[in-house]
Formats: sequence, structure tokens, C-alpha cells
Amino acid sequence: MADPSTTLPLTRASVLAAHSLIKSYIHETPVLTNTTLDQLASTPRTPEELRGTEWEATERPANPKIRFWFKCENFQRIGAFKARGAFHAVERLKQTEGLEGLRKGGVVTHSSGNHAQALSLAARENGIPAHIVMPTISPPPKIAATKGYGANITFSGSTSTEREAVTREVIEKTGARLVPPYDHPDIILGQGTAALELQRQVAASLSTSGTTNRRLNAIISPCGGGGLLSGTALACSDLSPSDPSTPGPILVFGAEPSFSGADDGRRGYYSGTRIESVKSLTIADGLRTPLGAYPWSIIYERKLVAGMYSVGEEEIKKALRLVYERMKVVAEPSAVVGLAVALFNEEFRSMVEREGGEEGWDLGVLFSGGNVELAALGRLFGEE
Amino acid sequence: MADPSTTLPLTRASVLAAHSLIKSYIHETPVLTNTTLDQLASTPRTPEELRGTEWEATERPANPKIRFWFKCENFQRIGAFKARGAFHAVERLKQTEGLEGLRKGGVVTHSSGNHAQALSLAARENGIPAHIVMPTISPPPKIAATKGYGANITFSGSTSTEREAVTREVIEKTGARLVPPYDHPDIILGQGTAALELQRQVAASLSTSGTTNRRLNAIISPCGGGGLLSGTALACSDLSPSDPSTPGPILVFGAEPSFSGADDGRRGYYSGTRIESVKSLTIADGLRTPLGAYPWSIIYERKLVAGMYSVGEEEIKKALRLVYERMKVVAEPSAVVGLAVALFNEEFRSMVEREGGEEGWDLGVLFSGGNVELAALGRLFGEE
Repeated sequence: MADPSTTLPLTRASVLAAHSLIKSYIHETPVLTNTTLDQLASTPRTPEELRGTEWEATERPANPKIRFWFKCENFQRIGAFKARGAFHAVERLKQTEGLEGLRKGGVVTHSSGNHAQALSLAARENGIPAHIVMPTISPPPKIAATKGYGANITFSGSTSTEREAVTREVIEKTGARLVPPYDHPDIILGQGTAALELQRQVAASLSTSGTTNRRLNAIISPCGGGGLLSGTALACSDLSPSDPSTPGPILVFGAEPSFSGADDGRRGYYSGTRIESVKSLTIADGLRTPLGAYPWSIIYERKLVAGMYSVGEEEIKKALRLVYERMKVVAEPSAVVGLAVALFNEEFRSMVEREGGEEGWDLGVLFSGGNVELAALGRLFGEE
Repeated sequence: MADPSTTLPLTRASVLAAHSLIKSYIHETPVLTNTTLDQLASTPRTPEELRGTEWEATERPANPKIRFWFKCENFQRIGAFKARGAFHAVERLKQTEGLEGLRKGGVVTHSSGNHAQALSLAARENGIPAHIVMPTISPPPKIAATKGYGANITFSGSTSTEREAVTREVIEKTGARLVPPYDHPDIILGQGTAALELQRQVAASLSTSGTTNRRLNAIISPCGGGGLLSGTALACSDLSPSDPSTPGPILVFGAEPSFSGADDGRRGYYSGTRIESVKSLTIADGLRTPLGAYPWSIIYERKLVAGMYSVGEEEIKKALRLVYERMKVVAEPSAVVGLAVALFNEEFRSMVEREGGEEGWDLGVLFSGGNVELAALGRLFGEE
């Protein structure tokens, strides 16, 4: 991996530069809107709906006005935003190290999820070998998918100590460069490009329809390791009012599952100390990771994220069902946590009501990915 | 219902007129492409894949070149193309009968599926009462969804005789006009508008990318009652080579499930006699209906459909899985039967290889709808 001291500064300008580097490799994913979900979000929740939740005692449920803009990274290459960071990391390594050396040593990461597939794809398209360290207990379809992208798989134990030891062995043996899944500037800058596109797409759509009195007011992003959230925060920092795609400030919010401590980012954000370990089995399996140090510096220390919110497992399932039934798109549970916050978290909704006022908000929602096992989905919905 | 003798002639010009009438009510649904599915369709099937199928003894599996263009009517209002026909039928009734009278008597149909919801929506948006006759045994979610569009529901027995008797009673009592689900010119002309849009969208996309040596060669449509297929055939008839959206002939094909006789359209087409009764429980539940008389006159008598093909239940499930996993869109089983034919039916594939030659074909595929019960989907995929 490129030495962090030689990476680009963590600014919006660097996200713009990242976008120029990767745009020929990635899809500009579509932005969808949905009248039914707008209406649902803009209707106060009933006392019956709030019964049994932490907002049961709320006297007057929030009444925000929300118009959603869904950035569909489930349609991205490999089915998730991770393609952005991986292609950017590889492009930067090509710039700083040269393609020749990279083709000899290759790249390496330890991951069993979307990042493994994203790095394998980015490497393959550049004729670079990819080494992926995966726990022996990884689900066979994930192993098969990663092999399908042409990666060399090395198995390890499932603790992070074991995985890191095997990764070091691969590096010693091959000279491969490490590309971590989220805690690195190049990855963060790559992930931020989704929010850049969203800014431009919303501005273009409003301009085409002649809607001059509205603009993108905020973006909510899922938060696991924090790569997507912190990249989004950078993309929304230092906005120029003279840029037609960013006529005003854009607030950025993080969304997490609350189940068994997966809301480490939120708890850290409000307590002032980063939480470095998480052991949650939330259905939003992409968000079981603790927040990384670089993301933390952007989200908390530089205060580029305006707030962190969480929702329970049932609320994530409800949002997932709405996305399938009403939008007809396939999303993974992690992808809909931001939507679940906007629909079901009374604190978030009260804040939007207060800040958005009569006009309400145009709210960007990052759908991070769509890689879900159909059998798992079957178990989730089949029993109902 | 408007007397068929006063309806527009069954021509492409009438489909164009239908599109002008309804375009402010419906979505111009997106057209998606997918490299992975193109590659899969353009790779010969292996002897292992053909084992156990009717093509087991094939010496040389077909090797067609296919580039797909998926017209996503699963993103249409009410989640299916049926909105097109229903809005067109209501617009035509407004023209011929006047809105006043319609608002008094209303419209009526017997259906438990997408047509019931489509007619309810079209009626509601015009302030017209909708009466829907549904079997008492209809699934509660379908009843709820139809009520959700503001329709008056009258229950009946489940045989067609019982449903028609109750429908006649409703008409006598209310003066409602009957809007049948597929066997009527106004419905057929409305459904044909999806193929019109597809022609224009493909031409625009090829033109934008500077691809001047390709054009839409054919469209494959699912076939139940035959409204969508016959409307598509009209939209592709009498093409003008001076129209930039139709620079050459476009062949139209029908796709059906083969399970327990649901391929009535195919059997009738090749035997020369329309089959008027079907009792199949194929998972493609929108295609359990026999071909109607008006569709038959277009498909068979006028020979505007170039061929009919069928596939088995396992092939429909495989295609459905690919659509979920690779395209990340939610489709109902009926919607993917055309894709299943293109991927798995050796007769169709041999024909494309022969007709398309070295260049291959740009093939439009009508994804008819996305209204699927998540629990049913769960059962379909959960057990695997």
C-alpha cells in the first residue's frame, strides 16, 4: 500500500481527483426516486407503530417532509461501492509504484466480502495478481465468487490475529502491496466519489425539471468501517456555492444497526472515544466492523459528519421489505440502514422536521450494495 | 367497455396514438443492459448443462451472439406493464363515453392480479369508481393491495362462470363499463406502448455511443392472455425505415412456461387452432391464462409473431436467480420467461445463431412486472 504520508490530502479536491482517475472503470450508478417512500417518510408514525420501541412515550411523533434520492451502488460493478475504493487504490499504486513492479508482486487484502471481490476485479483489469486471505470458514459461494474474479485465495484462521499473520506471510513471499478495506486515505477518497456523482445527478435532475427552489440538503450513509461515510463527508466539505452542483451546504449523517453494539460509531461519536472492537451479528453484515482511525479523524475529529443514528433489526427488515416491494431493487441489509433511520428513527425525523421546516429536505440515501445470498433472503422473508 | 367495432384499428399507428394518450400517466421505464448476461447467452451450453433436458442428444450446442436490452416494466406504476392497457382503456372510454357518465357508473373487471390494481389506479386518478370482482379465496395481500388503490371489491366463487355471473350483477346494479384484462383492442394497443419506448430507447442509446452498425433486431415477450405479446407485435409491424428509431425490421417472439400445458399459445400457434382452456400451476403465475381471441388474430392469423418458445420451471427459476444476483432487480417469475428462453432454449438459440450470424442480435426482453410475494420468493430460494 502507498505510504499514507505520500497520499493526497483528505479534501474534496482529492475526491474530485479520485473520480477522474477511476471514472472509466466504474459505473455512474443511477439515482432513483420513489413517491411512495417519500409519502411514508413524510407521514408521522402512529402511536401503534411506536409501541414497543424506545419512542413509545413520544407525545407528538415527528412530522418531517422528506424527498429521497437513492444512489444505487447495488448496481455498481461487483454489486457494491467497494469497487470505487479498490480501483482508486490500484490506480494510485500504479502512479506511485509503477505498473511493472505491481504486476510482479501483486496486491493483497484480508476480507471475505465485497472488498475482496472489488480488489480482485481492479487487479485483474490491470493484469495484476490479487492475493486474498479468507477465513477457512468463509461461505463457499463467497469463495467461489472471489475465485471467479481470478484471485489467489489463501486460507487462514478466523481471528484478526490469524488473518493478519497469514497476510504478512503472503507479503513476505510475494512482495504484494496491502490494500486494506477502509482504513486508508486512497480507499476513503475512492468511496467519496459516489457522493460527488449524487450531488451532480440531483442538481441535473432538479434543473431539468425546472425546480429551482430545491437542492440536495443532506446525505445519509451506512457506517461500518467508515470508508463510505468519511469519503462522503469529504465530498460534502468545502463546497463552492459557485458550483451549480452544490448550491448550498450538504449535511452528512451516519447510520448504523443498534443490535448488540454494532452502533460503535454512534457511541464513539457521542462519547468522544473511538470504539475499537465490535462483536455483533446484526443482519446488516457489512456493518459489523469497528470504525477505522482515518474515518474517525474525518467523522469525529474534523466534525465533518453532523450526526450518527441507529436502528434495530426489525426496522432494517421493514426497510428492506419496502425496497424490494416498492422500488423493485435488490439491496443487501446493510444498504438500507440509512433509509430505515429516515423512516423509523424519531430523533432523526425530529431533527429533519426542525431543520427542514415547511419546505422539508431533499435527502440523499446511499444504497451501498446488493450482494445478498438469495437463500438468506429466503430465510428472512420466507417465514413471515 | 367500448364496443370493439368503434375501437381504433389494430396497427402500429394506433399504438403511437395510444402512447400519446397515456404518456402523462405512466413511467417511461428504464432499459437496462448487463454484460454478464450477454456473455452467458453468447456462450454455448455444455453437455453437462444439457443433460436431463430435451436437448440432451444435441451434438453441437447452439452458439448465438446476443446483446440484451431489458425493458423494465417491473418499475412501471403498480409494478407491471398492465398500467399501460388500463390507462389506455380508461382514456378511450373518456373519449367515447364522456367522463361524466363514467364517474357515475364506474368501471369493472374480474381479476385478482396486476390488472385489478392497474384498473383501480387508472380509475382513481380520473375520479371514477372501480369495481373489482375477486374470488373469495384470493390471497389477503392481493385483496389489501387492490383496496389500497380505492377499489370496491365484490367477492365471487373461483370458477370463471361464477366470476362472470357476479360481474354481470355488478354491471346491472351500477352501470359500470367492463374493462377486460387482455382480450380487447384498447388493452392490446396500450400494452404495445412498452415496445414503442424500447425501440426509441435502444436507438437513442446506440446513437449516443456512436454505434451505427447495430440496431434492435428482435423482441421477446412473455405470453399469457397475449395482450403484451400482441401489442408488441403491432408496435413492430409496418415499420418505417425512415424513422430513426426503427431502421430495420424487428422480429417478435413469444415465451411461455411449458409446465403442465401452460404453453397453450405455442401449441396453438404450431397446430393452427387456438387452445381455449389452460389448467397449469406454473410458478410463472401471470402466464396461466389461455390466449385471447384478439391476441390470437394478431399473433397467429396475421402472423405478426415470428415464433413461440417455451421453457421449464427449473429454467425459469435459474433465470430469476440470475436477474436477482446479477442485475439486482426484483422481477416476478412470469417476467423472466423470455430471458429463460434466450439462455436455455436450444431451438431459439440455434435460430438466433442462424439468423444473427457473426454479428449476432440486439434482443429486447420485456420484463413484464415485479409483483412477487417476498414469502413466496423466500420459499423458492430459501430451500436451496
